[in-house]
Amino acid sequence: MNFPSKLIEQAVTEFSRLPGIGEKTALRLVLHLMKQPKEKVEDLGHALIDMRNNIRFCKDCYNIAEEELCQVCLSHSRNKEQVCVVESIREVIAIENTGVYMGLYHVLGGLISPVDGIGPEQLQIASLINRIQQKGIKEVIMAVNPNMEGDTTIFYISKKLKELPVTITSIARGVAFGGELEYTDDLTLARSLTQRLPYENFLINR
Amino acid sequence: MNFPSKLIEQAVTEFSRLPGIGEKTALRLVLHLMKQPKEKVEDLGHALIDMRNNIRFCKDCYNIAEEELCQVCLSHSRNKEQVCVVESIREVIAIENTGVYMGLYHVLGGLISPVDGIGPEQLQIASLINRIQQKGIKEVIMAVNPNMEGDTTIFYISKKLKELPVTITSIARGVAFGGELEYTDDLTLARSLTQRLPYENFLINR
Repeated sequence: MNFPSKLIEQAVTEFSRLPGIGEKTALRLVLHLMKQPKEKVEDLGHALIDMRNNIRFCKDCYNIAEEELCQVCLSHSRNKEQVCVVESIREVIAIENTGVYMGLYHVLGGLISPVDGIGPEQLQIASLINRIQQKGIKEVIMAVNPNMEGDTTIFYISKKLKELPVTITSIARGVAFGGELEYTDDLTLARSLTQRLPYENFLINR
Repeated sequence: MNFPSKLIEQAVTEFSRLPGIGEKTALRLVLHLMKQPKEKVEDLGHALIDMRNNIRFCKDCYNIAEEELCQVCLSHSRNKEQVCVVESIREVIAIENTGVYMGLYHVLGGLISPVDGIGPEQLQIASLINRIQQKGIKEVIMAVNPNMEGDTTIFYISKKLKELPVTITSIARGVAFGGELEYTDDLTLARSLTQRLPYENFLINR
């Protein structure tokens, strides 16, 4: 595509580097920004730059932090004996939004995936094991996506933790609340039958 | 949604102000940027700010310009007796990319839409008429989207130009090249039949 101005072209190019944003969408965004007051565009630009320049990762759990440790690790009201293992910060945000989890986290930064060339040494697994050994952690909750990579990662971590006095659990899998049995895939439905629990555990209003 | 950091929250809020970008997409973009080198994020931020601060609109045709007049109006190889009337800069870019049009443009900045409260006085229509009267323009090509607002705008402009020695044309409407008759809507197909032209006009390889 040719653009009527180098400035527009540059902005479109930069936008279309973002995942899921093609050239046409980028142009639409740029034309939208052109109609906004200058201050609004400066707010956007500076918010991105500030975020990137000032954000850090917690030295214990690799969650997003503004200081050396993240808000979760710094909090006195969290259970320091529980660690929830997640793939990325996205899952931390999702779990935090439920408001029911009061333990700590450990962000792996990905999942083991031989196909993509991602091995355990590229992830924060050594630091997890280290942390469990040294900080008196009693329960590790695996909260990774239910797929090949997730299973491989759980398997690898559980093997490494075998000798340690720590319980390993996984978040429950089954038919989602609000989901319909009829449209649930076979695997989920079959597993939710074999993993059944006393009904009181799964009432919506408990 | 709650965010683990004010900086992230700010960046997500700014991103989700853009059209078509919700909170979840904004978060995905922000987490992507966090993994990029600082310089890349600065490039993006500055490209947007520079673009907004330095871009201007051509004083003749309201196309994007870096100086007083846009590249099209400044060019000596364009036909100054032809003006193509379009809704926005997006159409200028689309038409320029075809490479077949050698006349000038006039960007209205919208279409007449009483439902949305947009009347002719909010658009660059007075300036168009002024330009036609003073610059010896011989043909006005209407290249607006084929809908209610487009038709209203064409009708209004053509009425205003009735007394002036200028030809008013519209871009051709019909079955698109590469389109299939079977899936073409009734109106387009019916009009493409009544507006038929000698077949030589519509061969793909002329």
